[in-house]
Amino acid sequence: MYRILFTLSAFLSLATVFGQNEDSLMIRKIANEILINGKAYSNLHTLTKTVGGRLSGSPQMYKAEEWGLKTLREAGAEKVWLQECMVPHWIRGGKDEAKFNIAGGNEQSLDILALGNSVGTGPNGITANVILINNYDELEKRKKEIKGKIVFYNYKFNPTLIETFHAYGDAVRYREFGASWAAKYGAVAMLTRSMTESVDNNPHTGALDYIDSFPKIPAAAIGLWDSDKLAKAITENKDVKIFLKTNAKMLPDTIGHNVIGQITGTDYPDEFITVGGHLDSWDPAEGAQDDGAGCVHAIEVLRALKAIGYRPKHSIRIVLFANEENGLRGGLKYAEEGKAKNEKHIFGLESDAGGFTPRAFSIGLRGEKLERIRSKWLPLLKEYGVYEFIAGGGGADVGPLFEMMGTPVSELIPDSQRYFDYHHSRNDVLANVNKRELELGAINMAALIYLVDLYGLD
Amino acid sequence: MYRILFTLSAFLSLATVFGQNEDSLMIRKIANEILINGKAYSNLHTLTKTVGGRLSGSPQMYKAEEWGLKTLREAGAEKVWLQECMVPHWIRGGKDEAKFNIAGGNEQSLDILALGNSVGTGPNGITANVILINNYDELEKRKKEIKGKIVFYNYKFNPTLIETFHAYGDAVRYREFGASWAAKYGAVAMLTRSMTESVDNNPHTGALDYIDSFPKIPAAAIGLWDSDKLAKAITENKDVKIFLKTNAKMLPDTIGHNVIGQITGTDYPDEFITVGGHLDSWDPAEGAQDDGAGCVHAIEVLRALKAIGYRPKHSIRIVLFANEENGLRGGLKYAEEGKAKNEKHIFGLESDAGGFTPRAFSIGLRGEKLERIRSKWLPLLKEYGVYEFIAGGGGADVGPLFEMMGTPVSELIPDSQRYFDYHHSRNDVLANVNKRELELGAINMAALIYLVDLYGLD
Repeated sequence: MYRILFTLSAFLSLATVFGQNEDSLMIRKIANEILINGKAYSNLHTLTKTVGGRLSGSPQMYKAEEWGLKTLREAGAEKVWLQECMVPHWIRGGKDEAKFNIAGGNEQSLDILALGNSVGTGPNGITANVILINNYDELEKRKKEIKGKIVFYNYKFNPTLIETFHAYGDAVRYREFGASWAAKYGAVAMLTRSMTESVDNNPHTGALDYIDSFPKIPAAAIGLWDSDKLAKAITENKDVKIFLKTNAKMLPDTIGHNVIGQITGTDYPDEFITVGGHLDSWDPAEGAQDDGAGCVHAIEVLRALKAIGYRPKHSIRIVLFANEENGLRGGLKYAEEGKAKNEKHIFGLESDAGGFTPRAFSIGLRGEKLERIRSKWLPLLKEYGVYEFIAGGGGADVGPLFEMMGTPVSELIPDSQRYFDYHHSRNDVLANVNKRELELGAINMAALIYLVDLYGLD
Repeated sequence: MYRILFTLSAFLSLATVFGQNEDSLMIRKIANEILINGKAYSNLHTLTKTVGGRLSGSPQMYKAEEWGLKTLREAGAEKVWLQECMVPHWIRGGKDEAKFNIAGGNEQSLDILALGNSVGTGPNGITANVILINNYDELEKRKKEIKGKIVFYNYKFNPTLIETFHAYGDAVRYREFGASWAAKYGAVAMLTRSMTESVDNNPHTGALDYIDSFPKIPAAAIGLWDSDKLAKAITENKDVKIFLKTNAKMLPDTIGHNVIGQITGTDYPDEFITVGGHLDSWDPAEGAQDDGAGCVHAIEVLRALKAIGYRPKHSIRIVLFANEENGLRGGLKYAEEGKAKNEKHIFGLESDAGGFTPRAFSIGLRGEKLERIRSKWLPLLKEYGVYEFIAGGGGADVGPLFEMMGTPVSELIPDSQRYFDYHHSRNDVLANVNKRELELGAINMAALIYLVDLYGLD
């Protein structure tokens, strides 16, 4: 690409031609502030490089909370505080190991990561025959063969689903419940293909959820190349043994915190708009896309509105939620306390799908209300990437606001194609975040908060 | 992000609910073919890893042509040929070097790349004082200070332009014409800030265009960190000297080729639809996004239509254009020969803005014709990423089809945020291409070609 493209200027003027002129100018101001003086990327740099992975209960969790308080203050929050909640305290406990061998053959190593919340194998590891299970139906059919074995789920992402979150939604039950399903039939451990469609071999961890009625067995995720290698070995040979050693342990719950910063509203100080991401992240990397991006998005909303001199009518709260990854205790606590105090929450917005170029908002509205914001607000946002409001809901952390108080909630929907390349793997690092893509997310979120503050959703 | 998002399913069913059902099914078939059996990424792997950078006239140019012939045949082209054209033959000639020192201070090196088409400094390099020029107006104002100096243009990308191609369009004239502007006033060499907004220090090369009336002086691009460092040094000190050594040379024109593959139409074999990208690329890297992506996009259109058994009514030609980067000889040759043979070209589609998630097509239609395809075709494409037809034109290579024959032309508009991080720099490598993003580009292009072939543009 050498020549200049003049053809795109249509995009640039859309908002001013069709949109409400004053709002369009205000959103332009927000955008310029974020694109010229933005702190989202440098804040993310500090979080990822000085704190890094920050799983609930870890020392880094407390460092991240300190970072959150400081960064919210610097962004211009008028009031900053910690909201205590008990969080699970799972530790990996050392390097995860796995290898397999075909009877009479050489040992081959597998690149694995123990799943969050899983139990460890003990110091001697587990050696057992492995059974390849491609899907749930196959597990049920072969239930009599499971006893004493390691179950290996090789269920694949469906590549034909355009939104990768759909493929994740389809596959992730094997990570979440696969261990208990296998334990029900006597399996001694569980391995699963990683929840990704990436072109590398990095394993992707993430939480499992043991079902109480069955024994808790060790569980880990395998990278895609190694999953294919193992599946091939099992398909071609009767007798494949695996050695698995994980050191994971669930310790007693410990104290964690939501980190909250507020600007108090001029007209309705007791009505709250919440904007958040989650502060915890998995340990193999830096939690850059999941969900450092969401945290710095939320903080940037406050910073930009403040920097351009906008005084919100409602109180705006930025919440860096604790423990989304393996418990959701922060999101639950925030809504519970709001309900207990009888707070009026008029809107909740979350960013937890990465700092990629935005395409849409999912929002908990239907019918006329939805059509109204589509026709009025999309022309204002389209220039900055968002061209759709999808009837849906918010993310995990603002979900309880809706469930407990009926608050309309929303989530930023960025382009999803790269998300699961990084998600819960060693690749979730700052180098895989693009500064401008990240900033566009913050622009659209700040614009939506401005519009909701000014016009409401009714 | 741990929980499952159910909210996006609205996206999935849009096309079938609102679109023409048969076309929607056909496009779904195309999409599944590309997402399940796609060859775009593996073809790009071969091109980037076995050929690499492939500037006009280089040995790699010929290797790339061989790759093109072979890959088009494998994709199912019924007829494959080379179309000869003379191409410029510029060589870098060795490692580019630059350093500066403030009078009495230490030497500091600058990371540079000589600009394409530039002359070299000679084996001893050039040592001269440097003058900092922030924009064209400043050059004019300070024209009497230029003589005998090295001009350093430090014009920056405008971060507030959402489409990065606009910032490029605004800044690139310094790279294209800055050397001649400076030479007009007696400068001995030119350096320019790189055409990027990246967060690293990689220099970005690209073609310059000497204006015949002025002497040809050496010219190179500097990475952003070094540009800032140099600008600061000049601003704070009167006497900053630069040593510049480039080894570039323009050799006589040599023979190059457009690589063309065709499926002949069933109903209108003598009416042509052209789909293309350019085969040449700059030498510092692999030409993965610019424009390996466009080449494999175009080939994948043919492969997918053939694979699903679609027989086009018109003849479809895939053209891997020669020499887009520093001459456009391939694009010109293709249109000239078409015109000379009185060929009827009904549509030209280009991909030369990277293999990122698609957002739009730019297309050379206005008024009712544009509205018609907007209302009929966007509902079919939206699920796959394209939500807009922008009144505009094609890219550089299909441009001559419009200029010489009035053919309506179009270009894929992918998300642009990352493009100039890689463009013409050492970072334009396969690792910076996402497989699924690349495939979505091919899906939308194949769908558009299918629709144009079936319904035309009138």
